[in-house]
Amino acid sequence: MNATDAIRGTTSAAGGIVVRSETLTVQTDQRIELTDVTDRVITIVRDSAAREGIVSLWSMHTTFAVFMNESQKALHADIKRLLETMVDRDADWMHNDPDHSDCDRLNADAHLRAMLLGHSLTLQISGGELVLGQWQRVLVAELDGPRSRSLRVQILGVS
Amino acid sequence: MNATDAIRGTTSAAGGIVVRSETLTVQTDQRIELTDVTDRVITIVRDSAAREGIVSLWSMHTTFAVFMNESQKALHADIKRLLETMVDRDADWMHNDPDHSDCDRLNADAHLRAMLLGHSLTLQISGGELVLGQWQRVLVAELDGPRSRSLRVQILGVS
Amino acid sequence: MNATDAIRGTTSAAGGIVVRSETLTVQTDQRIELTDVTDRVITIVRDSAAREGIVSLWSMHTTFAVFMNESQKALHADIKRLLETMVDRDADWMHNDPDHSDCDRLNADAHLRAMLLGHSLTLQISGGELVLGQWQRVLVAELDGPRSRSLRVQILGVS
Repeated sequence: MNATDAIRGTTSAAGGIVVRSETLTVQTDQRIELTDVTDRVITIVRDSAAREGIVSLWSMHTTFAVFMNESQKALHADIKRLLETMVDRDADWMHNDPDHSDCDRLNADAHLRAMLLGHSLTLQISGGELVLGQWQRVLVAELDGPRSRSLRVQILGVS
Repeated sequence: MNATDAIRGTTSAAGGIVVRSETLTVQTDQRIELTDVTDRVITIVRDSAAREGIVSLWSMHTTFAVFMNESQKALHADIKRLLETMVDRDADWMHNDPDHSDCDRLNADAHLRAMLLGHSLTLQISGGELVLGQWQRVLVAELDGPRSRSLRVQILGVS
Repeated sequence: MNATDAIRGTTSAAGGIVVRSETLTVQTDQRIELTDVTDRVITIVRDSAAREGIVSLWSMHTTFAVFMNESQKALHADIKRLLETMVDRDADWMHNDPDHSDCDRLNADAHLRAMLLGHSLTLQISGGELVLGQWQRVLVAELDGPRSRSLRVQILGVS
């Protein structure tokens, strides 16, 4: 666990503003697949000069989500199962109907599942480290793979 | 698609900080209705002097959501259908029961559906442009209309 | 309702950058329990020197969520009911199966329910005040209590 109370209650009049952006690429192998990108985000945070600030994560795709949870194979299977239960792939979605849609991927379920997980996540930096609780990991969810996917990381803070 | 790799890996020691806020108004006609506000957000980003930074979107209402997805009429019908399936309007919600609630709108479903979509979204600015992937659009969801709704846009970045 | 249009359309070239972080502690009494932390967030915003900016809220736990909605006892009962309906606690989740998981809390449902509510929320500051619509309150959701929980608040703005 990173130090979360390092600057509890303090106010920083900053030296300099830091903006750093990077795009992570994730290659998926399955139609639905969770990937833990925490270590890659931590590396970007450490490589930036930011001591305090925020980290914005943005999925560059409608059918690719970013969220936080524990990184455990069993739990990831449960997440996949929940998504499949909540959004039936084979329902007669209009997005999959050539009379109403020019999308030939038949991926309405992927759009809807990604919507429930979310496409943006904002984390914090304290003492130069990404702030994470004990079991917290940053996860991305492929929902219409396999494909090559991009996650944009932007740091906004002070050095 | 906007350029997303324009400043991949670079660190900006900024000229000046930019904070710009604007409130968008959306007039809805239906009880549940999705509106694409992407172009209006892009205009605010371009009008600001921000070259790199973030864009915070905040729904000013409990029963009005903001999220990202494709802007396609068929998919929007699917989203509406999913929300109606996941949250039954006619269940005996306590929020709709005069014995427990002083709300006379009977809109428990709208509160619950908005909660699933979310009320805040954080996007990024790179090279002076809103960062969006190929099919990505910023959508707001009216869930208890028709009404006049507000979305607050705040840009925090560097020029 | 706080003033939301105070600086509509204005651009601030800021005096100084403000970064302020604080960790709120919430003691819960039930397994599932919603707590309104709005007033505590408002106090942190006022105590900071930030006039314009954002407030990032981050749950420090996988099974503890943060989101926005109305603070009404009846609605909170409805939210709890919806979460219990959408994610069945007693399904045979792999996370609860000792053959696949070393977690002895049997809390797969708590992970999944928190995921649907979300762990990060980004709000705005305008004119030195937290921007909130008429019925909007900041809520945290305990999903595997009772426990002592932490919510990290980080303000990034200009004075």
